[in-house]
Amino acid sequence: MLYFEDLAVGQVYELGTWKVTAEDIVDYAQQWDPQDYHLDEGLAQQTPFRGLVASGWHSASIFMRLYVDGFLHETSCQGGVGVDGLWWLQPVRPGDTLRARIRVEEVRPSRKVPDRGTVKFSWELHNQDGEQVLQMYGVNLFGRRTPAAVED
Amino acid sequence: MLYFEDLAVGQVYELGTWKVTAEDIVDYAQQWDPQDYHLDEGLAQQTPFRGLVASGWHSASIFMRLYVDGFLHETSCQGGVGVDGLWWLQPVRPGDTLRARIRVEEVRPSRKVPDRGTVKFSWELHNQDGEQVLQMYGVNLFGRRTPAAVED
Repeated sequence: MLYFEDLAVGQVYELGTWKVTAEDIVDYAQQWDPQDYHLDEGLAQQTPFRGLVASGWHSASIFMRLYVDGFLHETSCQGGVGVDGLWWLQPVRPGDTLRARIRVEEVRPSRKVPDRGTVKFSWELHNQDGEQVLQMYGVNLFGRRTPAAVED
Repeated sequence: MLYFEDLAVGQVYELGTWKVTAEDIVDYAQQWDPQDYHLDEGLAQQTPFRGLVASGWHSASIFMRLYVDGFLHETSCQGGVGVDGLWWLQPVRPGDTLRARIRVEEVRPSRKVPDRGTVKFSWELHNQDGEQVLQMYGVNLFGRRTPAAVED
């Protein structure tokens, strides 16, 4: 079990891979992002993408699933605060295999709450060709193993 | 049909509402974010949230669906670039009704591509009590009605 005190700037974790299929792309899009380039190969050919691409929210969700399974479930994470920048760098296409990787960018003890702290990460997805497809800077709260002294 | 030239800083669009159920929260979480506070009311009671809350990616996805249905599908949108800040301000709980609203924050013609431009929006979700639950600053590309002169 990893607590706030165990996380230090520069630590890198590799979180495994996820294969993206055309069926998954269309399923996600029908539910959450029904735009032509996510819904149907024929329609997508008429768009600037020249073929089916995953919703950016689909790739963010894939990251989250790999992050929970490969990292968060063995930590004292108490939830997400937000994402300080989320950038879709390359399209995700049917058949791509995405690899998730995180790096600790910043650790900050709470000034008010003795038993937690905030950690900012680089959250990344790369495809099978080594191209980065998604960059996020995610901020999570983590419980401490040992409560710290805090300001009044 | 709205093109790049039709979007101006300060324009506000109301995009409709979405009712969140406990079943939806659990379904989303099982697929994309399997953490205790999203998966099961009993487990969630033991966490700092003291009850089931929606994954932050679920609320972002709900925003996206309202944005596509209520705005993007009648525009020349060519895709998303990213989100310059995404903040989960309040938990989303079973029974909440979320209301989406966008505001144009910045419009920038492309310097290289004559037939498109970039638009930055404030993307917001509020609940039935008027509390803001999600704040994002989303960046999309839009096609122009009339190509512009651009730099070499």
